[in-house]
Amino acid sequence: MKLLQCYIDDLIKTALMEDINYMDAAADNLIPPEHKSSAYYVAKDSGVVCGIEVAKRVFELVGGDVSFNILMNDGTKVKKGDVIARLEGSTLTLLKGERTALNLLQHMSGIATATNKCVELVAGTNASVTDTRKTLPGLRGIQKYAVTVGGGKNHRYNLSDAAMLKDNHIDAYGSITAAVAELRKHIGHTVKIEVEVRDLDELREALATGVEIIMLDNMNCQEMTEAVKITNGAALLEASGNITLDNIAEVAKTGVDIISLGALTHSVKCFDVSMKIEKK
Amino acid sequence: MKLLQCYIDDLIKTALMEDINYMDAAADNLIPPEHKSSAYYVAKDSGVVCGIEVAKRVFELVGGDVSFNILMNDGTKVKKGDVIARLEGSTLTLLKGERTALNLLQHMSGIATATNKCVELVAGTNASVTDTRKTLPGLRGIQKYAVTVGGGKNHRYNLSDAAMLKDNHIDAYGSITAAVAELRKHIGHTVKIEVEVRDLDELREALATGVEIIMLDNMNCQEMTEAVKITNGAALLEASGNITLDNIAEVAKTGVDIISLGALTHSVKCFDVSMKIEKK
Amino acid sequence: MKLLQCYIDDLIKTALMEDINYMDAAADNLIPPEHKSSAYYVAKDSGVVCGIEVAKRVFELVGGDVSFNILMNDGTKVKKGDVIARLEGSTLTLLKGERTALNLLQHMSGIATATNKCVELVAGTNASVTDTRKTLPGLRGIQKYAVTVGGGKNHRYNLSDAAMLKDNHIDAYGSITAAVAELRKHIGHTVKIEVEVRDLDELREALATGVEIIMLDNMNCQEMTEAVKITNGAALLEASGNITLDNIAEVAKTGVDIISLGALTHSVKCFDVSMKIEKK
Amino acid sequence: MKLLQCYIDDLIKTALMEDINYMDAAADNLIPPEHKSSAYYVAKDSGVVCGIEVAKRVFELVGGDVSFNILMNDGTKVKKGDVIARLEGSTLTLLKGERTALNLLQHMSGIATATNKCVELVAGTNASVTDTRKTLPGLRGIQKYAVTVGGGKNHRYNLSDAAMLKDNHIDAYGSITAAVAELRKHIGHTVKIEVEVRDLDELREALATGVEIIMLDNMNCQEMTEAVKITNGAALLEASGNITLDNIAEVAKTGVDIISLGALTHSVKCFDVSMKIEKK
Amino acid sequence: MKLLQCYIDDLIKTALMEDINYMDAAADNLIPPEHKSSAYYVAKDSGVVCGIEVAKRVFELVGGDVSFNILMNDGTKVKKGDVIARLEGSTLTLLKGERTALNLLQHMSGIATATNKCVELVAGTNASVTDTRKTLPGLRGIQKYAVTVGGGKNHRYNLSDAAMLKDNHIDAYGSITAAVAELRKHIGHTVKIEVEVRDLDELREALATGVEIIMLDNMNCQEMTEAVKITNGAALLEASGNITLDNIAEVAKTGVDIISLGALTHSVKCFDVSMKIEKK
Amino acid sequence: MKLLQCYIDDLIKTALMEDINYMDAAADNLIPPEHKSSAYYVAKDSGVVCGIEVAKRVFELVGGDVSFNILMNDGTKVKKGDVIARLEGSTLTLLKGERTALNLLQHMSGIATATNKCVELVAGTNASVTDTRKTLPGLRGIQKYAVTVGGGKNHRYNLSDAAMLKDNHIDAYGSITAAVAELRKHIGHTVKIEVEVRDLDELREALATGVEIIMLDNMNCQEMTEAVKITNGAALLEASGNITLDNIAEVAKTGVDIISLGALTHSVKCFDVSMKIEKK
Repeated sequence: MKLLQCYIDDLIKTALMEDINYMDAAADNLIPPEHKSSAYYVAKDSGVVCGIEVAKRVFELVGGDVSFNILMNDGTKVKKGDVIARLEGSTLTLLKGERTALNLLQHMSGIATATNKCVELVAGTNASVTDTRKTLPGLRGIQKYAVTVGGGKNHRYNLSDAAMLKDNHIDAYGSITAAVAELRKHIGHTVKIEVEVRDLDELREALATGVEIIMLDNMNCQEMTEAVKITNGAALLEASGNITLDNIAEVAKTGVDIISLGALTHSVKCFDVSMKIEKK
Repeated sequence: MKLLQCYIDDLIKTALMEDINYMDAAADNLIPPEHKSSAYYVAKDSGVVCGIEVAKRVFELVGGDVSFNILMNDGTKVKKGDVIARLEGSTLTLLKGERTALNLLQHMSGIATATNKCVELVAGTNASVTDTRKTLPGLRGIQKYAVTVGGGKNHRYNLSDAAMLKDNHIDAYGSITAAVAELRKHIGHTVKIEVEVRDLDELREALATGVEIIMLDNMNCQEMTEAVKITNGAALLEASGNITLDNIAEVAKTGVDIISLGALTHSVKCFDVSMKIEKK
Repeated sequence: MKLLQCYIDDLIKTALMEDINYMDAAADNLIPPEHKSSAYYVAKDSGVVCGIEVAKRVFELVGGDVSFNILMNDGTKVKKGDVIARLEGSTLTLLKGERTALNLLQHMSGIATATNKCVELVAGTNASVTDTRKTLPGLRGIQKYAVTVGGGKNHRYNLSDAAMLKDNHIDAYGSITAAVAELRKHIGHTVKIEVEVRDLDELREALATGVEIIMLDNMNCQEMTEAVKITNGAALLEASGNITLDNIAEVAKTGVDIISLGALTHSVKCFDVSMKIEKK
Repeated sequence: MKLLQCYIDDLIKTALMEDINYMDAAADNLIPPEHKSSAYYVAKDSGVVCGIEVAKRVFELVGGDVSFNILMNDGTKVKKGDVIARLEGSTLTLLKGERTALNLLQHMSGIATATNKCVELVAGTNASVTDTRKTLPGLRGIQKYAVTVGGGKNHRYNLSDAAMLKDNHIDAYGSITAAVAELRKHIGHTVKIEVEVRDLDELREALATGVEIIMLDNMNCQEMTEAVKITNGAALLEASGNITLDNIAEVAKTGVDIISLGALTHSVKCFDVSMKIEKK
Repeated sequence: MKLLQCYIDDLIKTALMEDINYMDAAADNLIPPEHKSSAYYVAKDSGVVCGIEVAKRVFELVGGDVSFNILMNDGTKVKKGDVIARLEGSTLTLLKGERTALNLLQHMSGIATATNKCVELVAGTNASVTDTRKTLPGLRGIQKYAVTVGGGKNHRYNLSDAAMLKDNHIDAYGSITAAVAELRKHIGHTVKIEVEVRDLDELREALATGVEIIMLDNMNCQEMTEAVKITNGAALLEASGNITLDNIAEVAKTGVDIISLGALTHSVKCFDVSMKIEKK
Repeated sequence: MKLLQCYIDDLIKTALMEDINYMDAAADNLIPPEHKSSAYYVAKDSGVVCGIEVAKRVFELVGGDVSFNILMNDGTKVKKGDVIARLEGSTLTLLKGERTALNLLQHMSGIATATNKCVELVAGTNASVTDTRKTLPGLRGIQKYAVTVGGGKNHRYNLSDAAMLKDNHIDAYGSITAAVAELRKHIGHTVKIEVEVRDLDELREALATGVEIIMLDNMNCQEMTEAVKITNGAALLEASGNITLDNIAEVAKTGVDIISLGALTHSVKCFDVSMKIEKK
């Protein structure tokens, strides 16, 4: 999967304008344009690389006079000390692009790394790990991409591309049954319906409507196990709410199909990578 | 301090386009336009509110038919269960703006809350807590604002507004002394110079140049205590590198003037707030 | 369903910049600012109104000094001579916004009207009428909205929100069976798979994979009738290719579930509406 | 004539963001990046090619790893089955750019083709065929370009670059004579004045003012013939209103100088072109 | 004449982002939000006010909590000490918007004032004063507007809306006669042709083609007088090149129709206006 | 120092859209695409070249088929008749980019030239010459860059990056002493404070607060000489207000550290450069 170049370029330009404004008060006044350096990216921790093409593109947009040799592609698992990329060229471009490139790489790798930890914890079960719409403004595309790089899958991208009936919708409309019937009159044939249920009675009502996906909202593992039994494959079941690294394996063992975690994108711990310039 | 409205509006529009695209497949097909609801924002944890005006603005840009009554302004410390705002009006607007508003509020409150924890840990010392340039693309303004709401101060906004000489600059130019002398020929009179030093010898060289700020890079507390003694008020000292909630109080006690933490903005844990729609 | 205001506003601003540039060489030099007029919109044909809120918004963005009283909301069927809206206020604003407002209203009403003709021709059958991705740059949102106003449904919005396997994908990957199996490893649980088939053998292969939707590519009505029989409700069937007002009723009678028409958005005949300024 | 690259690029980026969003759920998950294909564009009807450079640019902006060999330049008349271009390179780029490129090419060729039919129908007369301001938001540049490729000429681009006095202006100002006199005090020397007249009396009044162009609004051929006689070359005469392929030749024979048709841009029938990927 | 609001708003937002970035380090930290002030704009010189509505809009976009009472509308001649507007409201908004509003007002008034000086110097002659395309990026609209406010007229806005044949075009094409003939085959009926001539022979050749406008490039007054005689009203004559306040009256007396001055927009002397906050 | 490419590109695109719109009515209709020319840039006056890389970039964005050979880099002093650059390639691109490139080059060179005159007049003194925030919307980056090319230094870029207390702030807050104390509680450690003083008593109060910079507002040379004596190096002193080429040398001799001039950017006299196409 390859992100759309013009989306990435706009994001990088926004970041460069924020970070450089019109000049680098230090580098632009000190480093002669013809000065060259070699540098490398080194992982400071174990994790999954993500965003390395984005980091490379930053230096192209700053100046284009740096060669960026990717040693570890997106999705590669690295450990502390691994060299991820080698850079060579204009020192000025290296210094001016450094922070913007690392900010993006570290954020994306942080998401991929956290996702991958969840994916490993549910290995051997039926469950897949997904993100949510709890993303940061302007970053949804790179955040959802990073989830897939970490081995997770993407939940719906936005409110247009799948219809989720939450308690608020259902309360406002009357009942699950009535709301699903009404929705079906309007939505296109490519749009799935997902219904959020709070207990097993609502689950049974939702199942009776034949919707494709049912979200089990904040249920405990015992309830979810029961829900899986009742559903018996008639719909996809999504576990959601209060799921952490501590309990995700247990949740997966209930037999649910999807486990969605807002924290993958709303509470990202960046993955530490350094750019080291080599002494000559 | 009030963020510039047109900056905030652009950020919200970007977020709305990502989250809604052209319609909400569920709400737009189910909720009659004349349907009204009451709702409230409730804190799910203890922390510092930040971004409440931004959240309010989201609903104005979605539709303008919701009244948003702020009960807790930016900077207020709340505990679990506190009601932060009351909303009333079009159910459709409430549902369509919900996620975008919460994504912003939770991110900004998360930063303010984490900053405030640091600020409390250094209370009684000379040290102030600051952010870095380790921010997310397009979000630097709201992230730096949130740091101030949490009681921290802002480090430089971008590469133009202060000149920091890092090891890479110094290595490329020759020496601290030579680099500072060259810089002074070029930078404007409002731009401070900060020099990063790796040991006490470099500190002494930097002090001799008379620069305003010296960053002690990854020094331990013993070295920093010594650095404070050597400096004796001749420059501001900034501690940076590997500072966490666990050691920040100890770092502050060394007598440094500034403690900067990348994690305040690069590894944000969102502050949990829910929007609850009231049953009628 | 209500389009997102900031999307509409950006579209209108683009149109106004194109149409007015910096001034109206005639009106700005002739009409005194205090001059007021009354005007009305009149249908010049029979059809379905669409975009009336967009037209209203044009005058707000030009000047805000015109009251725009909507008499026929989006979705209303009108006949030649029906008055759709009444406008009153600044003559200068009326003249400067006239063309931009009509261009949008006529295009959107043209789509709604054509869609509605198709919808009426398939009435009484199982088939719903949908659009395609054959839209115009920047206009996809208003074009898809207009299709729903005309009584049609929307096909997928973009390449991210549903996965369609066309002949090119299948040829590149090997077989329908292999391609569907691979896809299922990657796509999120909210994304439906649609497979394009060229004959009944491919249909049977696609059915065996259990995909949600199958597109019958350029089949004749006899083949489609047979396809419906073979499928027997196991997947949604979409008829596509060479469908016109002349044959759509016949296609619908084959029992297919969806009839998609590129012409609804790629070959729009505008619906004629005039703005008449009333003599005093 | 060559359209401005940055205008075209912005249009293409808008279209790509609409059509691809962050990924192609099918191609990005199925087609290995190293997979190559050959393809070609084939006309499905007779017409005039327009937008082939724009189509080529789409693939550059998607990925740049496709060679696009233009066989028929803009303005070439093609018939069903003619091969317009040959493409070779990354299958992924070919599939992701396919729809956006065709949407633009088909729309622009549709306009050029329809214009060319009109131009051929008036051949041998004095009349030239022009567009109007009845264009679609954001597309005016490519639409007007397509008219010229089809052999037509462009009417004014926007309200700033020529001054047209319509009935509404004249009614608001008082009389043709007074309005023209007032306008002349203000407009620049490069701006022509065109006056719309509803009958031969108004024509005579307009002629007396010495304006460069007079629009004969919805006149029948007999009136227009009379108007040409009265005018006797003292101004350019533009026929406008209810002109179609059926009557355009007759209108041209009246001797008018310009025939403007809104339908060229407001009711475009796309020109059908297919992209065929070659089996290996 | 009223500039298009969305053009102005975009310009102001660009200026505010440049000038305020994310906060005013002084005002945002000092002035309590409830603090109110009265202020006024005072002219520091004699000149023509221009841009007062733009200045007013700045404060609306900064905060909206300031009333801005315009005392002198665009086009008013003021002298040193005249009060142009009175402002009242939030001190914070007044201080944050001050510089952006004045930068725009002073630039626009500077253009209007300089234009007006030229207009007064040619009073009583046939000549009108116009601008050129020598404008600043993004500012052409407000610069050309300011010229009209000062009593001048606008030359063509851009390369699309009038066709000027300069020496370079003519040299590249062959001759004036050939170039005009070719141009006439292509341009629309609303586009005037202007030909630049370097001597009286070229003038005679240009006149023979019947073009609407002829530019006398860098001729002296004697040549221009002769050119007026030769032309005898058959085309508009534009004087261009090396025209200043010192010689414009003399140039006007030669009988030329238009005098165009690049300096009106490329070398603007700002008109000094101060914002004074009233002591309480 | 090198300006950020994406900032420059956006500025150029804005300028090209303004100047070319969709086509050049003359060149696009006359010059065959294969026509080539040679051209050169020649200085029409003495001054300092600035913006030559920007001018080069214009032709790349118009078409990319022109080689642009820079003979005089930014900062070079040229005299009338000096050839600054040689261009060769597509005549169409040369003609379409000519005005936009020159508008930028002439404006930037105008600023560099005027700055340089000031810098030469203060040579031998302690004073440096700086700009202000009196810039034009969207152009601040290139204007401040041009000041440095002319040998000047940049004052603060925006309100965020340095805190200036002007009379209005001080009046609103109470006193210099109180305002500085309050500010220090809030601003980051990289932000300098500058205080504007109107007389020597205020100077003494400002000095007592220990602020880094003090602006002497509209003082005469005698007062400034006295101020320098009182300050005795305890703060940087900035002279501001009514400083011109006539009195700048005298001001510099008072011993002030900085002389700031709004006129450098708000009243720019463009530096005249011509593009000459060579006859073949």
